[in-house]
Amino acid sequence: MPSPKLYFEDFHIGRIFALGPKTVSADEIVEFATEFDPQPMHLSEAAGKASILGGLSASGWHTSSMFMRMMIDSYLLASVSEGAPGIDAMEWRKPVLAGDTLKGRSTVEAARPMRSRPHIGIVTFNHELENQRGEIVLRSRNSIMFRRRDAENAA
Amino acid sequence: MPSPKLYFEDFHIGRIFALGPKTVSADEIVEFATEFDPQPMHLSEAAGKASILGGLSASGWHTSSMFMRMMIDSYLLASVSEGAPGIDAMEWRKPVLAGDTLKGRSTVEAARPMRSRPHIGIVTFNHELENQRGEIVLRSRNSIMFRRRDAENAA
Repeated sequence: MPSPKLYFEDFHIGRIFALGPKTVSADEIVEFATEFDPQPMHLSEAAGKASILGGLSASGWHTSSMFMRMMIDSYLLASVSEGAPGIDAMEWRKPVLAGDTLKGRSTVEAARPMRSRPHIGIVTFNHELENQRGEIVLRSRNSIMFRRRDAENAA
Repeated sequence: MPSPKLYFEDFHIGRIFALGPKTVSADEIVEFATEFDPQPMHLSEAAGKASILGGLSASGWHTSSMFMRMMIDSYLLASVSEGAPGIDAMEWRKPVLAGDTLKGRSTVEAARPMRSRPHIGIVTFNHELENQRGEIVLRSRNSIMFRRRDAENAA
């Protein structure tokens, strides 16, 4: 028996989904940066220490990608998601350094049926990730489309 | 003799920097998705064809990361960039499918000295990537900090 899926109706306003934890290794930071963001502070501890970031630090895009994986593991893969058209905002507020452990939460801010596609609903989330010192490192807001259970039952 | 670096003053309003081209392989799509966004349409051609995306398609975060690499290769690594605090908006407007070739441009929309750090200037860009059919696949806007040549010469 398959486990029940998360539908639009399950994302009620104020509901919180936990993200992480995920510890970031130096190897992961360097591997991502080598392919996508080869700036010195993302490639070596020495260059990171010499920069304003204070140590080998993850590319913001790497942090965002790890954040995506945490959403996948927390609720997206268990849902009837139809994808996201983008992100409204993404703030990288603090450096993510090698050895940091990230965790956070996605909070449902709004939910509304889609006018043009009545079997789909749009859920707007506020997302936050913090490090092991409780400092917010990432803050983001975006909307994700989910199928509606009501519409499916009616079909 | 090192090549001259790009400073804040070089990012005048209206200046355009070319991005790409970059052809996206099926292996790259699957490799990124396996680590960061393991949803079926990013993992196999069959699941992609069965989805509304129409084929094996890159995670939006993968497209964004490739876009970062294009900025690096076009102007960021040749500049005195001090990093970016985030992104104002990111739209994934069309699927990026295996075999697609992406190119685009970063256009300077605004440039202003930073009040709190007079040796730094903030440049706001509009970014666009399109596929080989001329369809816009990604649109984004963000601000990047650069050191000021004037401040450096005065120091």
